Amino acid sequence: MKTEILYGVHPVLEAIRCGRRTVIEVYAANEKRSRRLETIENLALSANVPVKRKPLSWIQATVKTVSHQGICAKTGPYPSVGLAEMLTKTDDRDPFLMLLDNIEDPHNLGALIRTAFCVGADGVVIPKDRSAPPTPAVSKSSAGALEHVLLARVTNMTASIKTLKQQGMWVVGLDKYSEVNIYQSDLTGPMALVVGGEEHGIRPLVRKQCDGLISIPQSPDVDSLNASVAGAVAMYEAFRQRHGY
Amino acid sequence: MKTEILYGVHPVLEAIRCGRRTVIEVYAANEKRSRRLETIENLALSANVPVKRKPLSWIQATVKTVSHQGICAKTGPYPSVGLAEMLTKTDDRDPFLMLLDNIEDPHNLGALIRTAFCVGADGVVIPKDRSAPPTPAVSKSSAGALEHVLLARVTNMTASIKTLKQQGMWVVGLDKYSEVNIYQSDLTGPMALVVGGEEHGIRPLVRKQCDGLISIPQSPDVDSLNASVAGAVAMYEAFRQRHGY
Repeated sequence: MKTEILYGVHPVLEAIRCGRRTVIEVYAANEKRSRRLETIENLALSANVPVKRKPLSWIQATVKTVSHQGICAKTGPYPSVGLAEMLTKTDDRDPFLMLLDNIEDPHNLGALIRTAFCVGADGVVIPKDRSAPPTPAVSKSSAGALEHVLLARVTNMTASIKTLKQQGMWVVGLDKYSEVNIYQSDLTGPMALVVGGEEHGIRPLVRKQCDGLISIPQSPDVDSLNASVAGAVAMYEAFRQRHGY
Repeated sequence: MKTEILYGVHPVLEAIRCGRRTVIEVYAANEKRSRRLETIENLALSANVPVKRKPLSWIQATVKTVSHQGICAKTGPYPSVGLAEMLTKTDDRDPFLMLLDNIEDPHNLGALIRTAFCVGADGVVIPKDRSAPPTPAVSKSSAGALEHVLLARVTNMTASIKTLKQQGMWVVGLDKYSEVNIYQSDLTGPMALVVGGEEHGIRPLVRKQCDGLISIPQSPDVDSLNASVAGAVAMYEAFRQRHGY
């Protein structure tokens, strides 16, 4: 089995709590004692995951980043799901999916996944190419939300959008040049929201498949909103409408 | 005069465009030619700011970060304003201010300032202590929005809130434990929105001065929203209400 080294308090904690991927062993720094690390150790032990104490320098050398907070874990690969599986899990609710096209920065991808999870999205779809993959760095940036969220990696985003449309979903893309804004659009019902990358937005072929494009009103004087902020504002407007506020 | 080295396309461009701080000299990398750099050079020359070509290694050594995009500028200090000045500039509109308490990460501060500017906030207030100061790194993270926005650095945030309240402003703090959410609150009228730091939120004495506390609905399963995302979602809900959407 291909293994990965997850790191940081939230990714390790959520991976054990969710139980979606195999957690083989947890490594905690000798030099660190905190209530948060203790919580993880107890949780690991009750899930029959061995916990080993290691020198901080060993953890540092193993994860190759400074943001490990004194904890890491050897795990199985990230448990991506298929698009079909994602849709069967929404039961009788109207599904709400996030399609993240062309997000190449792991921090932005992690931030968007964190917000998608906070807002209760039923799943996140990313292309296999042209996207940061769901690495431990993304799990860290998502504050562990990656471990909870259903994430599908698809080979062809335009084909996936066609499938979603055939299943009766409305697919709307976030585009800063659209004259229709998020507040003027009905974001209720079965739908997928497409957010593109920081530099170039949604790719033209993907954009062409969207049923509609919406923008976020903003001052024209500076460069537009950061991709993860724009995605969050649009997700929460959908949340507001879908919850009848 | 104390000088600073601004770096990156947007900060240098917006500093020259705004004309709020003195731009003494612009330095562009010999090795870089692009339309964006050309735009800045032409703008600088028409504003009588000298442009010098320097080796990329010189720019690298001068700004001490890799995210300079081949351009930097020697400028005067950042032009903070006073709270009183900020309020006189809102004319007959209901003022909308952002109070950022305890944001110590320059990236989060920059991201919040960028959104505050996009949403048309009349000003941003930060404490002199307990906040990242408005450095070139913050200007970079704000995509140059720091150069446009009116920013006040106050010695005592609670005293500033008292002043704002005396002037008839409603001061509301973002607090993840509040039972009233952003959609259940009237965010129109003269108001200030207080956002606290990533780790500890708004400081207790500042929180105590707030007229009300509001939260963002979110899944209880993971760590809450990132501070800059939470601030953005709240700012845009205020925007929505204030623009009658």
